Amino acid sequence: MNMEQNLTDAELQSAIEAMGRKARNGAIQLANVSTETKNQWLAAMADAIERNSAELIRANTADMENGAKKGLSAAMLDRLKLDEGRIKAMADGLRHVMTLPDPVGEKLSETTRPNGIRIEKVSVPIGVIGFIYESRPNVTVDAAGLCLKAGNAVILRGGSEAIHSNKAIAACILKAGMDTGMPEGAVQFIPWTTHAAVSILLKMDSYINLIIPRGGERLIRAVVEQSTIPVIKHYKGVCHLYVDAEADLAMALDILRNGKCQRPGVCNALETVLVNETIAAKFIPMLKEMFAKEGVTVHGDPLWRQYDPEALEAVEEELYNEYLNLNISGRIVKSVEEAVTHINHYGSGHSDSIITANEKTAQYFLGYVDSSTVYWNASTRFTDGGEFGMGAEIGISTDKLHARGPMGLKELCSYKYRVYGSGQIR
Amino acid sequence: MNMEQNLTDAELQSAIEAMGRKARNGAIQLANVSTETKNQWLAAMADAIERNSAELIRANTADMENGAKKGLSAAMLDRLKLDEGRIKAMADGLRHVMTLPDPVGEKLSETTRPNGIRIEKVSVPIGVIGFIYESRPNVTVDAAGLCLKAGNAVILRGGSEAIHSNKAIAACILKAGMDTGMPEGAVQFIPWTTHAAVSILLKMDSYINLIIPRGGERLIRAVVEQSTIPVIKHYKGVCHLYVDAEADLAMALDILRNGKCQRPGVCNALETVLVNETIAAKFIPMLKEMFAKEGVTVHGDPLWRQYDPEALEAVEEELYNEYLNLNISGRIVKSVEEAVTHINHYGSGHSDSIITANEKTAQYFLGYVDSSTVYWNASTRFTDGGEFGMGAEIGISTDKLHARGPMGLKELCSYKYRVYGSGQIR
Repeated sequence: MNMEQNLTDAELQSAIEAMGRKARNGAIQLANVSTETKNQWLAAMADAIERNSAELIRANTADMENGAKKGLSAAMLDRLKLDEGRIKAMADGLRHVMTLPDPVGEKLSETTRPNGIRIEKVSVPIGVIGFIYESRPNVTVDAAGLCLKAGNAVILRGGSEAIHSNKAIAACILKAGMDTGMPEGAVQFIPWTTHAAVSILLKMDSYINLIIPRGGERLIRAVVEQSTIPVIKHYKGVCHLYVDAEADLAMALDILRNGKCQRPGVCNALETVLVNETIAAKFIPMLKEMFAKEGVTVHGDPLWRQYDPEALEAVEEELYNEYLNLNISGRIVKSVEEAVTHINHYGSGHSDSIITANEKTAQYFLGYVDSSTVYWNASTRFTDGGEFGMGAEIGISTDKLHARGPMGLKELCSYKYRVYGSGQIR
Repeated sequence: MNMEQNLTDAELQSAIEAMGRKARNGAIQLANVSTETKNQWLAAMADAIERNSAELIRANTADMENGAKKGLSAAMLDRLKLDEGRIKAMADGLRHVMTLPDPVGEKLSETTRPNGIRIEKVSVPIGVIGFIYESRPNVTVDAAGLCLKAGNAVILRGGSEAIHSNKAIAACILKAGMDTGMPEGAVQFIPWTTHAAVSILLKMDSYINLIIPRGGERLIRAVVEQSTIPVIKHYKGVCHLYVDAEADLAMALDILRNGKCQRPGVCNALETVLVNETIAAKFIPMLKEMFAKEGVTVHGDPLWRQYDPEALEAVEEELYNEYLNLNISGRIVKSVEEAVTHINHYGSGHSDSIITANEKTAQYFLGYVDSSTVYWNASTRFTDGGEFGMGAEIGISTDKLHARGPMGLKELCSYKYRVYGSGQIR
């Protein structure tokens, strides 16, 4: 018995299965809806969000009070908070998605075979997406908007700390969409906060085509272990900067500052700096001065600490982790090969950069580092759908299947083959 | 204790982990190997297979004898058998893959952003592929050749009935490859037939990027339930032909014969024919005559049996299954909408065809049937990498993520972003 919302396990199972069935039926309709119609739904949703801002803020206040009682940190509470400005930003986010090109129906290739059949490869929606996320309530709107624009039905499951906000937002956009003709299975929100709801969702492979988990490492691990549905992970970003023997040191310093300090809590921020030993004596003092100014703490291996005795002693385990704050690991390496080996071992396949003037060294790095995005003389902070010109992103995939790196509207599509014949047989 | 090959569970675990590590290291090398070099390995493998045919046949004889003892059917034994002709065909298969364009390194897109960074999206190998398959030993060579050409390391796990053949083939191609400089982790074969080996493999998400299971429904289900690695399923093909009210009936008959009878044991063969009620009285007698000649048995619903009283009574469960033989389900439908609803409910998302002269009806079918390949006036038997012009295929995906439908060399690749800057920060 799941007492929380007075549902038995069997009732929860059948309630979530009903959502799956509804989503699957909705998805078949959505795949054939015009761009104009989808944009009308998005416009109605944006307006409804602004119109109902008082109600959304009221719901959010309940979450804020619960969060304060539970002792959430000030940073967490800030992420959770909705105000008029943030509500306007959510609505504007939907209006921005309206302006993006519809990814559905694009002819990806076309070929006529010797027997006369014509094969068109055409982009189509993925179908039903299960989106599992934590904390910020604006993600509810962003994910719904992007999934819908790409013709997908979406089942949303937010974190318990934002449950009142998310329920209010979901109800608001669902009503606005349905009032303008959207099928009811197009956007659904799971109102039950119990973990059992997620476990049920992750087994519904006959209705759901893709699970996108966005959140902490534990959440993602749990999803991958339980899911029988394909998952595209939005995992951690253990991003590296390698400062080569032939680096422009002023450029390296700028990019290091930007990567570590501009917004340390995001996944494309730097977690480790690797310095070639031939420039260590010159570069590490420059870096120390800059880090002192910015309040950054270095965790160095023994070699590093020969150049920087004030650095903390590095713990190997930390090399696998995101600090997400003003700490950074520092290591001295002998060569680009050693840097690449380090990155492929400790990294998370997200974003890594080399600073060098030597093209051959750079090409080796770009070829051998097995990450979604590899940079030569630029900051890892650019790994982002907006910065890449995708218009918006639903997240950054650390997987290699289907979508790698920033995941925009195109990556929310699959394809199908449409074959035109005149009676051909084999 | 896994007595079969005298390994304890812990030994098996560490042996398979060692294979994973080796594959991951091999994959990083393979991603940067030239087309010429990969083709040299394939050529050496092809020659070695032919040179060692006597040894391969000797190993195969052991499998054939075990198979006969275990009571495998004549059809199964035929699939298992190797002879000079089939060995030559395996070698020629590798030589054919040599002629196909290398999918790695293709520039998929390129953009220069306002801040001056240039972003190249380039195809790269997926990395390490775990390929799990049943029965025919030639699959060992085909899968290794395709994975290698696309720059992937592959860990092969074949069925126990072909274990001697597969081990001999794998040893032969591995030696030939390594003699010509291939990294040893590039191609590996799991020599242990215990299920525990697969269970271990499916959890090695830190080394393996993709699992491709090819085989029966039970195998695939078990893989999906256990795997923490992304899986691309090569599931069943429950393919439909819908004969519309405005169909050319002679064409419909030809395509029905081809789809059901030419090779009933394959996944793109037809399993169900849906007939519009307005033509049933005319078409079903034509169909009966043809099926009588071809030895096909129809399982009809009550409406169908009004037109064809000799048809067997349909069992609903069968509508979900592949017959893979000369049986077919028959149903009368009122409209294209009902046909589409039937297909989306009972089908497996593989291949479905409509026969009609009405373009609007056809476009509705092509748009609303949620399958990898949808046909208008052509046989479902064309869903095949070769027929699609891909040169070769590793199988036919029934998933919607990454690869859908025939999966060739391009679909064995991922991509990465290579970003070129001159010191840009955000």
